[in-house]
Amino acid sequence: MAHVTVIGGGIIGSSWAIVFARAGVAVRVVSRRSDAIDSVRDYVANAASRAQAIAPDVSVDDLLSRVSVYADLPHAVQDAGFVMEALEEKLDIKAAVFRELDRYAPPDAVLASSTSSFGISRFASEIVGRHRCIVAHPAAPPHLIPVVEIVPAPFTSLETVEITYELMQAIGQSPVMVKREQPGFVMNRLQGALLTEMFRVIEDGLMSPEDVDRLISDGFGLRWAFLGPLEGIDLNAPGGIADYLKRYGFMFDDLARERGGTSPVVTQKLVGVLHDAMRSALPVSALPRKLGWRDERMAALRALKAQAGSFSDSDGEH
Amino acid sequence: MAHVTVIGGGIIGSSWAIVFARAGVAVRVVSRRSDAIDSVRDYVANAASRAQAIAPDVSVDDLLSRVSVYADLPHAVQDAGFVMEALEEKLDIKAAVFRELDRYAPPDAVLASSTSSFGISRFASEIVGRHRCIVAHPAAPPHLIPVVEIVPAPFTSLETVEITYELMQAIGQSPVMVKREQPGFVMNRLQGALLTEMFRVIEDGLMSPEDVDRLISDGFGLRWAFLGPLEGIDLNAPGGIADYLKRYGFMFDDLARERGGTSPVVTQKLVGVLHDAMRSALPVSALPRKLGWRDERMAALRALKAQAGSFSDSDGEH
Repeated sequence: MAHVTVIGGGIIGSSWAIVFARAGVAVRVVSRRSDAIDSVRDYVANAASRAQAIAPDVSVDDLLSRVSVYADLPHAVQDAGFVMEALEEKLDIKAAVFRELDRYAPPDAVLASSTSSFGISRFASEIVGRHRCIVAHPAAPPHLIPVVEIVPAPFTSLETVEITYELMQAIGQSPVMVKREQPGFVMNRLQGALLTEMFRVIEDGLMSPEDVDRLISDGFGLRWAFLGPLEGIDLNAPGGIADYLKRYGFMFDDLARERGGTSPVVTQKLVGVLHDAMRSALPVSALPRKLGWRDERMAALRALKAQAGSFSDSDGEH
Repeated sequence: MAHVTVIGGGIIGSSWAIVFARAGVAVRVVSRRSDAIDSVRDYVANAASRAQAIAPDVSVDDLLSRVSVYADLPHAVQDAGFVMEALEEKLDIKAAVFRELDRYAPPDAVLASSTSSFGISRFASEIVGRHRCIVAHPAAPPHLIPVVEIVPAPFTSLETVEITYELMQAIGQSPVMVKREQPGFVMNRLQGALLTEMFRVIEDGLMSPEDVDRLISDGFGLRWAFLGPLEGIDLNAPGGIADYLKRYGFMFDDLARERGGTSPVVTQKLVGVLHDAMRSALPVSALPRKLGWRDERMAALRALKAQAGSFSDSDGEH
């Protein structure tokens, strides 16, 4: 494709530059900071060399050769095939930049925002080309964590959704669709729910912060590196997820009640949706084979962790 | 140490047998099923061979040579140094077995239960040797996931806690202390909170089950395989976790309010406890180095995942 323009030379913008350049796409990074050329190229060089394992065939020099830094936005977006904004999380800043982008970028270029909290309709609904505006919210940093939330506004065109989704796949990211704009999208809600429960356990004096962290990093974190939590419970009862929820569904309702919830969590409708989704992906008869696959992956991950040691072991070496 | 006796030859019992035998400890597994010898040894052989990467120097034959299967409990616990019960999750079954264990096991042997839901006081408070009874709740299966929740009752002796904790460490598990008995301990509460939020997102039609799973397995799951969620956010603001909560703490409170919560999540007390815990482990000045360490681990994990492929890629090969 034509080059991609990334607006913003901070951590997220520079990390996006790695993602695109690693996939062979030329990237122009726009930053008005006086030290932008050095700071973007330094970040890219350091971060890409630490992430070399992800794309061993792409040298850091190759990657850097595809990244250029511009101070001038109109010049940088000229002929751009796609634009990714990654500026500060401030509405007025984003609104002003999207007006500029709509004016200077080629009319068929998608204008995406990395915003982690605003829907695109909060700052792009007034511009002429709003149909080509969309949120593509990465985890931080995107060159290490592939998932990207795609969040269209009601005014976003289907073509814009499709182009964005397919581009993310093509460059090795993992796009997921958020079907409606809402604060926190979905990613930060999931992390928020887990952290909120951890906070409560700590405030109640039930477990130390260090131990509650280890419950995940020496616990379910090993599973979730390979399998989503739904796939995880699908493997934990002989009949799959519907069987699991029949056996253990009461736990979720008990927990919700204890936290003051009044409506049941595990409804028949939910069980039906989950059963249909999991069983259309994989029949129950294939679960034992998937369990074996999971076990091998987790054993390999434990070997990787043992070989790498903990951060405190490496203290002073870096 | 003297041999360990595991009560129950199901998946958890057989997996415990791998954990102990892998660490060089002789294990007696008690099962009254007529096919117990074959089924336990088959599980151990298959599961241990898939998990070979965790202990490449221990052959499956060596491991099997340390595992014997008994039908007779009194005989199996004779001279045992430690007993681990892993039977069905039924109170009357556990109560009956703990009475037997107290009668036949050597008086200084700790009697641990793998129960995932009951406190030990629910079924061992009436026996004479209750001071040596304790919960050691593993993730499933323990030979792959090292974390173990140690949950004493008020009547459990400190010595029992210490022996159990140290044994778990010595055999390569990762013990965490639950300071009070409560339903679901802590592990299942954390998973429950995350899954409950996923269920809501799916019921609200915000995201498909497949995508919401991928939000974790291609998202935070990569981080949580190496770092607890608290360590994770400690790295996501220049000043560490207190700085993170100052910037983004409102998200947790917004989420709680939306779910009907009335009390604030991020209190000053909580911030103080988290700050003290994280900063006594690592000064803010060391965070950039830890970030580099994290990045390298995550890149290696992504390489491992890419090399292994997804389960659907491997479909039909196993």
